[in-house]
Amino acid sequence: MSQETTDDLPALWTHEPHIHLAFKPGDSVAAIDTNATPGFKGSKRDAPDLLLERAERFAELQEMLYANSLAGDNRKVLLVLQGMDTSGKGGIVKHVVGAGNPQGIQYANFGKPTEEELAHDFLWRVEARLPTSGHVGVFDRSHYEDVLIVRVHDLVAPEIWSTRYDTINDFEKRIALDGTTIVKVAMFVSLDEQKKRLSERLDRPDKYWKYNPADVDERLLWPRYQEAYQAMLERTSTDVAPWHVIPCDRKWYARLAVTELLIEALEGLDLSWPPADFDIEAEKTRLASA
Amino acid sequence: MSQETTDDLPALWTHEPHIHLAFKPGDSVAAIDTNATPGFKGSKRDAPDLLLERAERFAELQEMLYANSLAGDNRKVLLVLQGMDTSGKGGIVKHVVGAGNPQGIQYANFGKPTEEELAHDFLWRVEARLPTSGHVGVFDRSHYEDVLIVRVHDLVAPEIWSTRYDTINDFEKRIALDGTTIVKVAMFVSLDEQKKRLSERLDRPDKYWKYNPADVDERLLWPRYQEAYQAMLERTSTDVAPWHVIPCDRKWYARLAVTELLIEALEGLDLSWPPADFDIEAEKTRLASA
Repeated sequence: MSQETTDDLPALWTHEPHIHLAFKPGDSVAAIDTNATPGFKGSKRDAPDLLLERAERFAELQEMLYANSLAGDNRKVLLVLQGMDTSGKGGIVKHVVGAGNPQGIQYANFGKPTEEELAHDFLWRVEARLPTSGHVGVFDRSHYEDVLIVRVHDLVAPEIWSTRYDTINDFEKRIALDGTTIVKVAMFVSLDEQKKRLSERLDRPDKYWKYNPADVDERLLWPRYQEAYQAMLERTSTDVAPWHVIPCDRKWYARLAVTELLIEALEGLDLSWPPADFDIEAEKTRLASA
Repeated sequence: MSQETTDDLPALWTHEPHIHLAFKPGDSVAAIDTNATPGFKGSKRDAPDLLLERAERFAELQEMLYANSLAGDNRKVLLVLQGMDTSGKGGIVKHVVGAGNPQGIQYANFGKPTEEELAHDFLWRVEARLPTSGHVGVFDRSHYEDVLIVRVHDLVAPEIWSTRYDTINDFEKRIALDGTTIVKVAMFVSLDEQKKRLSERLDRPDKYWKYNPADVDERLLWPRYQEAYQAMLERTSTDVAPWHVIPCDRKWYARLAVTELLIEALEGLDLSWPPADFDIEAEKTRLASA
């Protein structure tokens, strides 16, 4: 990605967030400071107003992408969200993606595969939910589950999951060639922060529905998940689809950072409002007498 | 629908909006005052704050519906938007539905049918986009195109489109039995207001993409459309799926009214946060030591 500064990057960011957040060879999942706010000079107090302002910018660009698709532009954006339970994927969907127009947003949630899905190759259900021209697609979990939970729980043999990294790279290269800008976000919370968030779900009746006893069991597997995340980042961070590592102990930071990543992806498309594909003056005349 | 007042209906409404907006036998499309604000005592100045407040209420109920689906509740809501060009369907999607969480919103836009769609019965593409449990689905145009534009332009023979009213009623009855609360909204602007809105699209480069020269041709067919809308309202306003007629010359009114209709539909489901399906104290203990 280019290092040039976006014209209107808010002054509270020292650099474009991707510079601090892009996964680099040698980076270690175990060493992530989940409480950090890389590249951001502001504080939590600055966050609500800034998020509102930047979410509006995202919404404007998202609408422009949609408008261009009606004029034949086949480009689209795909946001891939991966992260342990309570890392804040849902908050990104609600507070960041939610700023967009439902007309141009395509949301897909990948839970436990159905029998029909399991009867197909692991990318089958993912292909079916790829965003179409002009849309911002969001994968809330994704094909990466097939090298994370599947690897940790030995749901398929190592000979199988180990081939999937290359398969995924080929797949993402293909959809990138088809005009998809891929924004991959790996969200990390500390075990302590996760415990706090799970506790809250047990304390608040309006949060019970988000609690799943299995989440506690997964905590015990954290070292194996770290290993799986490490392999995922190392093996599938490519030029066309780099991973970004988001420290998520501070929800407000994660939301601001992902918003900027989306804005940057959209600004990279050099969008403008599509020109009229009709004779403006002739239409004015026709309309005046209709 | 019941006539009892919802506890927290904002004081600016004299009655629940559906009381004024429900289509009643004998109502005439030609007589709709598109500039009226039935049931609303406030003014345009009150609208932004009230919309914000009520959109938040809608979002809360929408999340509750979603939460319940995870606990096995199969209910869902379907908002059907029909209206002439510029009547403001897009604004409802953006400003009303857009307040919801993308996780629980399923948007479907029905344009000119594809070849594959035309090779099937007219309801085939609609079935495929029905909201699933826990979701608020939005049809931006819908199966009603098949008794509106299709009728006005003679796209199929009268012997065919004339059977569709009953077919639609049967279809809606079936999905209502399956747990779908159907909110049907017919949006009306005056020809003058439509001309103003189309003119604006010709004046603003950021609106060209919304302009379609065919919209001007459709204006000339307004009497035939009125006839088709009249038949649609008379023949498909049923107990399980009544039509609401929304005067739309004032966008702020239309948005407030549809928001209230959605809230009313959701409140009618008597939702609450689903109870824990696990032993809360046991989980607290387990979590503490995990």
